Amino acid sequence: MKLSECTVAIIGMGLMGGSLGRALVSTRACKEVRGFTRSPENGESIVSLQAADRVFTDLPDILAGARLTVLATPVRTIEQQIATLYPFMDSGTVLTDMGSVKRNVVEAMRKLPPEIQPIAGHPMCGKETAGIQASDPELFRNKKWVVVPTEDTDPRAVRLLEELIETVGARVVVMDAETHDLAAACVSHLAYVLAASLVSSADLTARTVPQVWELASSGFRDTSRVAAGNIDMVMDILSANKDNVLAMIETATEQLGDFARLLTTGDEAGLREKLTHIRMTRRSCDTNKLF
Amino acid sequence: MKLSECTVAIIGMGLMGGSLGRALVSTRACKEVRGFTRSPENGESIVSLQAADRVFTDLPDILAGARLTVLATPVRTIEQQIATLYPFMDSGTVLTDMGSVKRNVVEAMRKLPPEIQPIAGHPMCGKETAGIQASDPELFRNKKWVVVPTEDTDPRAVRLLEELIETVGARVVVMDAETHDLAAACVSHLAYVLAASLVSSADLTARTVPQVWELASSGFRDTSRVAAGNIDMVMDILSANKDNVLAMIETATEQLGDFARLLTTGDEAGLREKLTHIRMTRRSCDTNKLF
Repeated sequence: MKLSECTVAIIGMGLMGGSLGRALVSTRACKEVRGFTRSPENGESIVSLQAADRVFTDLPDILAGARLTVLATPVRTIEQQIATLYPFMDSGTVLTDMGSVKRNVVEAMRKLPPEIQPIAGHPMCGKETAGIQASDPELFRNKKWVVVPTEDTDPRAVRLLEELIETVGARVVVMDAETHDLAAACVSHLAYVLAASLVSSADLTARTVPQVWELASSGFRDTSRVAAGNIDMVMDILSANKDNVLAMIETATEQLGDFARLLTTGDEAGLREKLTHIRMTRRSCDTNKLF
Repeated sequence: MKLSECTVAIIGMGLMGGSLGRALVSTRACKEVRGFTRSPENGESIVSLQAADRVFTDLPDILAGARLTVLATPVRTIEQQIATLYPFMDSGTVLTDMGSVKRNVVEAMRKLPPEIQPIAGHPMCGKETAGIQASDPELFRNKKWVVVPTEDTDPRAVRLLEELIETVGARVVVMDAETHDLAAACVSHLAYVLAASLVSSADLTARTVPQVWELASSGFRDTSRVAAGNIDMVMDILSANKDNVLAMIETATEQLGDFARLLTTGDEAGLREKLTHIRMTRRSCDTNKLF
C-alpha cells in the first residue's frame, strides 16, 4: 500500500487539516487529496490555497473511495465522527486523526469493525491562529508526529501513515495513548493553563494599575502566547484530558507554593538552588534541540 | 546639557550595559563611552565588540570626569553602588541605572547629596542569555524605557537621560517606582515564576514519564523561555520586589484554582467564558502592538 496510489480524505479543513492538504497537494504524494467543508467560504479558501484537489460538502461522498481518511476536527468531534462515519468508509480504509488527546480517540477506534484500520495520531505543532487562512504546508517540517496504533492495527496501515508523516517532513514517534495524554497534559495543556493564568492575573491587576500593559514586553509576550489559541480546540482538549490536566494544575500549584515559601522565609540558598536546576533543565532543552 | 558633550560611564558591562555601550559607540552620540569591568576577559570583549571607547578597571577612575553614569549591575548591587560610589562622582553628575526593580533604587537615590542628579531607569527588554557576548546594539530599538525621577531631579538631567534613551531607539515612559514595581511584578516577574513552575512541573513528571520531553514543542518552548534567564539577576529581582511578587503568585494561584474548579465541576459555559475573555485580552495586546 503506497501513498502515491491512495486517495486521502481530510475531514476538517482548519489550520491542521488545511496545512496537511497543502503539504500533500504541493508534493503530489497521493493519487488525490480530498477536503471536506460545509462552509462555501472555506471551500473557496481550500481551492485558492490548493489545500485539496477536490472539495466535498457531503461526508458519504468524500469517504467513498478514500484509502486513508484523516479526521482533523476538534478532539471531541473526532470521537463522535469515528463512531458515526465508519459505515460510509470503504472496507480496508486506514483511519487516523490529528487530535491533541488520544485516550478518547483510541477508545472510540477500538470499537470499530475489523474492516477499518485505525491508527490515532497527533502532530506536535500548532499556532495561536486558527483556520485555513493560517495554514502552512511547512507546518509539520521537523516536528514530531505521535502515532498510536491499536492492538489490531495492521502494520501495513501503520507504514502508510508513516509514509504520509515523512512526506510532509515530520518525524514519527510511537507512543501509547495513556503516556501521550499525560505527557501532553504537562508540556502542552499545562503550558496553556499557565499562560492563561498569567494573562488573567495581568488583566485583574490592570483594573487598578493600568500601567501593567505599559510594561508588558517580550517576556510577557512569549510566556502568554498560547493563551491566544483557538477556544473550541482548547475546550475539547481540557475536557477530554481533564484528569491529567487537573493533576498537572495541582503540581504547578505546588511549585508556586514552593516559590512563595522560599521567598517568604528568605531562603536565598534554597531559591537559588531550585532556580539554577530549572535553568539548567530549560537550557538542556535547547542544547538537545528538543523543539 | 547635550549628550554629544557628555562622557558616559557604564558600570557593569553585561547584556544591558554592553548593549548600551555598543549602541552609543556606534551612533557616536557621546563625547566618550567608558566601560567598567574587573575581568580581563570581559575587557577584551568590550574592546572587540566596541562596547566602549575606553575600558576602566578602577571605579574612581571611570567616575572622574563622567557627566552621566549608568549602573547596569544586578539590582541589589545597584542599591549598594549608589550608596558607596557617589563620593567619587563629579558634582552635577547625572546618575541612572538599568535595574528591574525601582523602589529600592529610588530609596537609595533619595539619600544622595544634592550635587548628584539621580533618575532611576529600566529598559523593558531582555534576553534569556546573559553577558556581553549576548549584547546587541539594537536591543533597545522600539522598546519602552521606564524613567523614574526623584522629587529633586533637575528637569535638565531628565532631558539628558531622555536624549540617551531616544538615541538608542527606545521610548521614554515616566512612572513612579511603586507603580513600576507592581506592574513589573505582574508582567515580568510573575511570567518568570510561571515559566519556572512549568519547567519544574515537567521535570518532576519526566522522572516517571520521560516521554514528556519527546512531546515538548513550540508551546512549551515559548511559555518556558524566560526560565532560562540569568539567575543572579533573577535572585536580585525576586528579593528586591518580594512583596509584589508574593502578591502576584497568590493571584496566579487563585487563577489556577479557578481553572481546576471549572474543570472539576464540568462548568463548560463558565470555562469557555473565562478562556474567551483571556483570549480576547491577549489578542488585544497584539492588536495594540503592545510588544
